Amino acid sequence: MFLLEIDGLKQIERMTKIRDGARRENSAEHSWHLALLAMVLVEHAAEPVDVARVVAMLLVHDLVEIDAGDTFAYDDAGHATKAEREVHAAERLYGLLPCDQATTLRALWDEFERGDTADARFALAIDRLQPVLLNHANRGGPWHQHGISRERVEARNSVIGDAAPALWSAALRRLDELDALGLFPGSPAV
Amino acid sequence: MFLLEIDGLKQIERMTKIRDGARRENSAEHSWHLALLAMVLVEHAAEPVDVARVVAMLLVHDLVEIDAGDTFAYDDAGHATKAEREVHAAERLYGLLPCDQATTLRALWDEFERGDTADARFALAIDRLQPVLLNHANRGGPWHQHGISRERVEARNSVIGDAAPALWSAALRRLDELDALGLFPGSPAV
Repeated sequence: MFLLEIDGLKQIERMTKIRDGARRENSAEHSWHLALLAMVLVEHAAEPVDVARVVAMLLVHDLVEIDAGDTFAYDDAGHATKAEREVHAAERLYGLLPCDQATTLRALWDEFERGDTADARFALAIDRLQPVLLNHANRGGPWHQHGISRERVEARNSVIGDAAPALWSAALRRLDELDALGLFPGSPAV
Repeated sequence: MFLLEIDGLKQIERMTKIRDGARRENSAEHSWHLALLAMVLVEHAAEPVDVARVVAMLLVHDLVEIDAGDTFAYDDAGHATKAEREVHAAERLYGLLPCDQATTLRALWDEFERGDTADARFALAIDRLQPVLLNHANRGGPWHQHGISRERVEARNSVIGDAAPALWSAALRRLDELDALGLFPGSPAV
């Protein structure tokens, strides 16, 4: 039953910690956080977007992790198999729904993955911005813990700038602050 | 900053446990679960509803718990002070937003609390249905643990029937199963 099966997303842990660093964030509460961020930040979208579609996309975008697990953003080996694992997961999970709903929700996930619409680009920007906010609140969080360079963080997250330039500026200010604190490998203060 | 302040909802524990009973659910992941349930179950609404508004309402409906805490549904003493605590919380939390957004999101919460629109009635029905699903999966969960009678559970949740009769029938079948297992005080099998 889809309605209970999706409860499993509450047990998928991400690398990012919640704001006060007490524990790792799970993908269900992460998805909730993103949906609210999208509602509040939509005025910063570079292109016109349908915020209700963005919210719906963000609510389903991580469901495949119930089967495929969360893949750390900077885990190159994990990313080599991520797409295949997630497509299998999508087949099973959306397949639990009546056909019309399976088609609608799966289409939202496919659109998010393709990233070829304004709605998907803004949803991705929000998905990338939120860990910046949390890792900034947690003195670099998993970036610092795993020695991820500022260059890699910038390269991965610069898509924020395409969809929402003001949000990318806000993200860069936070990276500057972490840099000044010496929390990236090779930071000035290290 | 509102965007980080709301992260606090991830640390508000509810009485209900997640599906496998491993731990209590928090109000952030609960809100995510409700939003997805609303998307999937909207066809059962007795009146026409705007599902995007219902989803937005469910995403914000528990934010006040960041300050006011979660009040167990069957805690009469807690309910005596709930409204006052939550209004104070709403003033502070929504007050962190720019005025136009504060007004919009606060209005969604007020509407949910008043329950005087079709969208709010359906949102409330989903908020009541989800613990039925989880407590059924957890052999009565907090109802059994705290000796809450089937009569009280039915009285509290019968609003589901007003907004979505088919969902109330589905909920009653689950209460019947718990009853048959002797999981309510005075159940036939006890």
